[in-house]
Amino acid sequence: MPVEQNITVELGDRSYPIVIGNGLLAGEFDLESHVSGSDCLIVSNDTVAPHYLDAVVSLLPSKSVQTLQLPDGESHKTLNTVERVLDELVTMRANRDVTVIALGGGVVGDITGFSAACYVRGVPFIQMPTTLLAQVDSSVGGKTGVNHTGGKNLVGAFHQPKLVVIDTDTLSTLPDRELSAGLAEVIKHGAIADIRYFEWLEDNMSTLLDRDAAALAKAIAGSCEIKAAVVAEDEREQGKRALLNFGHTFGHAIENCLGYGEWLHGEAVAAGMQMAAQLSDIDDTARQRLADLTSAAALPISPPSIGADRLREAMALDKKVEGKQLRFVLLRSLGDAYVTSDYSEQSLDQILAQASAT
Amino acid sequence: MPVEQNITVELGDRSYPIVIGNGLLAGEFDLESHVSGSDCLIVSNDTVAPHYLDAVVSLLPSKSVQTLQLPDGESHKTLNTVERVLDELVTMRANRDVTVIALGGGVVGDITGFSAACYVRGVPFIQMPTTLLAQVDSSVGGKTGVNHTGGKNLVGAFHQPKLVVIDTDTLSTLPDRELSAGLAEVIKHGAIADIRYFEWLEDNMSTLLDRDAAALAKAIAGSCEIKAAVVAEDEREQGKRALLNFGHTFGHAIENCLGYGEWLHGEAVAAGMQMAAQLSDIDDTARQRLADLTSAAALPISPPSIGADRLREAMALDKKVEGKQLRFVLLRSLGDAYVTSDYSEQSLDQILAQASAT
Repeated sequence: MPVEQNITVELGDRSYPIVIGNGLLAGEFDLESHVSGSDCLIVSNDTVAPHYLDAVVSLLPSKSVQTLQLPDGESHKTLNTVERVLDELVTMRANRDVTVIALGGGVVGDITGFSAACYVRGVPFIQMPTTLLAQVDSSVGGKTGVNHTGGKNLVGAFHQPKLVVIDTDTLSTLPDRELSAGLAEVIKHGAIADIRYFEWLEDNMSTLLDRDAAALAKAIAGSCEIKAAVVAEDEREQGKRALLNFGHTFGHAIENCLGYGEWLHGEAVAAGMQMAAQLSDIDDTARQRLADLTSAAALPISPPSIGADRLREAMALDKKVEGKQLRFVLLRSLGDAYVTSDYSEQSLDQILAQASAT
Repeated sequence: MPVEQNITVELGDRSYPIVIGNGLLAGEFDLESHVSGSDCLIVSNDTVAPHYLDAVVSLLPSKSVQTLQLPDGESHKTLNTVERVLDELVTMRANRDVTVIALGGGVVGDITGFSAACYVRGVPFIQMPTTLLAQVDSSVGGKTGVNHTGGKNLVGAFHQPKLVVIDTDTLSTLPDRELSAGLAEVIKHGAIADIRYFEWLEDNMSTLLDRDAAALAKAIAGSCEIKAAVVAEDEREQGKRALLNFGHTFGHAIENCLGYGEWLHGEAVAAGMQMAAQLSDIDDTARQRLADLTSAAALPISPPSIGADRLREAMALDKKVEGKQLRFVLLRSLGDAYVTSDYSEQSLDQILAQASAT
């Protein structure tokens, strides 16, 4: 029996639902009622499409549906790939009533969303995330974009989806390493906003790793609720939304230094969260709980050996840099975070030194 | 003695001023007070930069200023050129407080505005248009973007500038043909929204072609007022803003068939306005007045010989197409326009037949 949960991202006339459940792609969800025009383009990748593309096409029996399969991987999250999506829309002679559907992980969602943002200055799009990372993080909130050789997500747009459809069944085909990477953002949401959610994760991490369907749905719904509330309050990251970047200033720098794809985004964030916790004025017990939960999710808790100088250099281009001063999301306690440029340079040096080549 | 006029585009917390006057680039304008951060990138082109780039740099004595010169011409209004601007911003290690300044015509403004929209999902930008076309049309209203081989402006964003600075002195170096092209949009504004402005243009067209400074300033201010009012009411072209496309469904198709740059945008719009007037249920006297004013501005009043079928094909991709039905901006009378999908197919056939190869 399918279980469906609905969460709304409250953004006035751009509000949209997040539908979470199982069996959705198998036919339990009325996708067509969310598509206003007659044309759809479903964008997926070579890994996800063989599993789920036919199912999604079947949910749109009365629409004119085109599909596009991109190569899988963060290395393809470039402006060139966006051009492929745009070319497809032009070939379809799509106009403003086309709906673009992203079926895949965060990379597919980010590329597809940015393409939808740019095509004729913006067309509707729907997120159908198939990785835990995308389900709890990137599919919600309207951040779209691609990487530049100079840094991650340097080119993009804020473009909210019309709908997010999360079918937990898609996690059955997700590799273990990617499941863990998604759990990094789940842990992050608890750490920055909700100690009770964090505690629930401490109690249920092994159940989650066993892919218990009910536990996964609960974790996803909990994360989406936290993210939706933050986005509703600060859509364009003028203030509170920056809290979602806990661990990301370090994490992006790690990814940038290693080359995208070497470590998964969630793995880099996991290590980054420990570094941010070290820079935070919290007690060692709290730091240890964060490290233990992260380890329990089979995630790294220290950075790779890339050198302190290179890490610092990479952080300097991070877009959270404002007025040349680095800003960090730090913890007051587990479940309570804040953004600051006021941190100990000496502590930062020590933390970065962990990343020095050994 | 410099004369300055200020018009505000009313868009709530994104409202911005249009400053129109002479002597502004020569030092009469306090540009720095509109730049919040310390970094600026001025984007211009090979034609405009030799005349005005140094002057604009001089207006920013306390800022860290980089400049970028793009090749001139509509053929460079592509995603590749946007990448050059983005590369420059990355090279500067610019962050969200960078201000990007577009100094040039509509092509420079559209490319630069779209680059500013995409870089770290949006940074402030300032329009300093140096052609009449850009001053009365493209620099105001936040439409940015580039062409695709499949059609004009198919890739872009709505991204409002923080400020538009129009120095009428820059028109002194504008070729006659481009002055006329700008007058096409000036005539359009009168035709769709203000019969008195239209009449003023009938009385002053020769003075405008003589580049009388006061007349040009008055024409620019009149056009900007009309455009600002329409944009304030309908920023994202859900309704009324489509009126600004009078002559453009035909005009874009003409440009698309000829190849961008063969006819100037304003020339294609001039011919397109006559075609739209023919499709309109207005009396012959009104049509003749529009044709006479257009001719007086040294603009074409009939389409080139490209074939009716090719023109129709090109119109089909036009983004004003919704639900596969062509939409046109038609006139109720001079100074009063409306958008409709209800038109005579037979009249359209006759109008397109004018474009048949002779």
